[in-house]
Amino acid sequence: MPDVDFVSLTAYAKQFSGLTPEYEGLLQEIGPQVKPLLMEVTESFYGVLQSIDKTKPFIDGKVESLKKTHLHWMETMFTGPYDEKYTAWMYKVGDVHVKVRLPVEFMAGGITIIGNTLHPIIAGLCGTDHGRCVKLASAINAMLGFSLMVMQESYQASSLAAELEKFLAITGMSRTLFDNLARAYK
Amino acid sequence: MPDVDFVSLTAYAKQFSGLTPEYEGLLQEIGPQVKPLLMEVTESFYGVLQSIDKTKPFIDGKVESLKKTHLHWMETMFTGPYDEKYTAWMYKVGDVHVKVRLPVEFMAGGITIIGNTLHPIIAGLCGTDHGRCVKLASAINAMLGFSLMVMQESYQASSLAAELEKFLAITGMSRTLFDNLARAYK
Repeated sequence: MPDVDFVSLTAYAKQFSGLTPEYEGLLQEIGPQVKPLLMEVTESFYGVLQSIDKTKPFIDGKVESLKKTHLHWMETMFTGPYDEKYTAWMYKVGDVHVKVRLPVEFMAGGITIIGNTLHPIIAGLCGTDHGRCVKLASAINAMLGFSLMVMQESYQASSLAAELEKFLAITGMSRTLFDNLARAYK
Repeated sequence: MPDVDFVSLTAYAKQFSGLTPEYEGLLQEIGPQVKPLLMEVTESFYGVLQSIDKTKPFIDGKVESLKKTHLHWMETMFTGPYDEKYTAWMYKVGDVHVKVRLPVEFMAGGITIIGNTLHPIIAGLCGTDHGRCVKLASAINAMLGFSLMVMQESYQASSLAAELEKFLAITGMSRTLFDNLARAYK
């Protein structure tokens, strides 16, 4: 993986996705109530992926072990801290997605499935406190968007790097020659 | 742009993002109430982009014209139909993002800003009908996720195609020679 400044990336992705300290606090505050219900999100996630022809082959035979990692991720979303370590983890996830050749749209699709299931769960916990429910909907939206942005940045970097490797393998060109030509081209 | 089966892509992205006929109906039903408020979403969208160092240069001097297209898109989200024409439009948007060299994470970030603003607006319109508000939150989440998935699929296809063009330009290799080598490599 390239040398990434995760402190800057965290600040940038938070500003973009609107993950404010207030939203982080709300997610942590509702954490103890929501955590016992998060298995429902994980089950729904893999349930949808198992129902789609294009996604099913990627998870067949691995669902039980994937669920553990997924549940841990869901719990972290309601624990924090939402710092450079969390960002580095999400960055790694994007890179791994390229390595196991997951199509790019799986990340946005997966985040959407999680949101679809989390919104009603959180709303159920808010009861009649309409104002808190609305703020939590935006907090979840911001948190999921923050995570997705970071994953996709590394997915893009890794897939372009993989594309260069493919080009070099096909043409039989050395990396040194290519780098020299690239310098001359500029 | 490549030859894409937009009917299949629509069905696939809807299944993945959970954009069901029920959710589509809810979005269309609340359309007349929400449309007069959508300028708020567009204003907030470009307000955030103007406040971030990395995004600002991409929109400077073009904000007023971009707002018109953005508002039209927002209105379409609450009008429908959510068919292959809409999918083809989102696919084109992903391709244009590559052509104007927007970083990949701008799409996920942008969709997140829209969600952050739409959730409270919709909640305000639902009043005390908590059940409808919760369903609409998932409907918005699904609609935004559906749009993002399609955009990103074309962004990825276009950025890999642009990467190949770059390799060919740097190495001075013809497309025919590369294609022949690629066939031999397989």
